[in-house]
Amino acid sequence: MFKLNHRFEEDSIFVTKLELCQVRLQNDARFPWFILIPEVEGVEEVDALSVSQQHVLIDESSKVSAALRTVVSADKINVANLGNIVRQLHWHVVARTENDVAWPGPIWGGGTAEKYEDKKRVELIDSFLTALNK
Amino acid sequence: MFKLNHRFEEDSIFVTKLELCQVRLQNDARFPWFILIPEVEGVEEVDALSVSQQHVLIDESSKVSAALRTVVSADKINVANLGNIVRQLHWHVVARTENDVAWPGPIWGGGTAEKYEDKKRVELIDSFLTALNK
Repeated sequence: MFKLNHRFEEDSIFVTKLELCQVRLQNDARFPWFILIPEVEGVEEVDALSVSQQHVLIDESSKVSAALRTVVSADKINVANLGNIVRQLHWHVVARTENDVAWPGPIWGGGTAEKYEDKKRVELIDSFLTALNK
Repeated sequence: MFKLNHRFEEDSIFVTKLELCQVRLQNDARFPWFILIPEVEGVEEVDALSVSQQHVLIDESSKVSAALRTVVSADKINVANLGNIVRQLHWHVVARTENDVAWPGPIWGGGTAEKYEDKKRVELIDSFLTALNK
C-alpha cells in the first residue's frame, strides 16, 4: 500500500495522478517546480523500479517538462532524483531561468522556500493541467 | 555529426560507449561520478530525444547506477540532467555517501574538483567496466 512521506504533504500540493506518478507542485514560488512520485511502496532508487516503470517515469517526466515549458519561461529544464534527505523515490522537474535566484547552480538546499500566494498557485496549477491534458 | 563539447574533454575521461550514450568519468575524486552523453547532435533537453531514445537513456542510467553500486560505497545514487552551464545534453549518475563533502546537498557547483591519481582512476574504471559488462 503506497503511503506518501509526510514531507511531501508539508512542502508540496497535489496536482494530478498520472499512470505511475503522483504529480505535486513544490510550494516554492522561487522556481516552477514539480515533483513526480511513483506510487510504488518502498522504492528509493530509480533502478529499483521495473524497466517498464522506469520508461513510464521518463515519459511522465517529459510530459510534465513539455507542459511546464508552455506555461512558464524556461531557459533550461532540470530533471533529477536526489533523495538524500527524503528517501521515498521522487523525481524533480524544474523550470530554470537565467534570472532565477540560484542560476546557474542547482536549486536544492539553498535559501528558503517562498510559499505561493493562493491566487498564483491556483492559476499555475490550472494552466499547467490544461497544457498537460492537451 | 555528433561532436563532444570541449568542457567534457577537459573535466572527464572517456570510459565506454553504450548503445546511445558515451559514458565518461568526471575527473573529481570527491565523488564517484559518471556522465552519460547521448551521441545525438544538437540536443539539450531530455524530452528533445525521441521516446525510444529516452527509454534507452534511462536504461543506460540504471545500468551505470547498478555497476557503480557494486564498485563503490553508495548510500544513495543521484541522477540528473541540469545543463545550466554546459548545454549539450548530459546525464549525471553519482554515488553519494553520508560522509561525502557535499552530503546531503547536491554536488554541483560547490567546492573544487580534486583530480584522480592515475592509479586510482584506472582501478575505478577497470572495476566499473567489469561490473558493467557482467
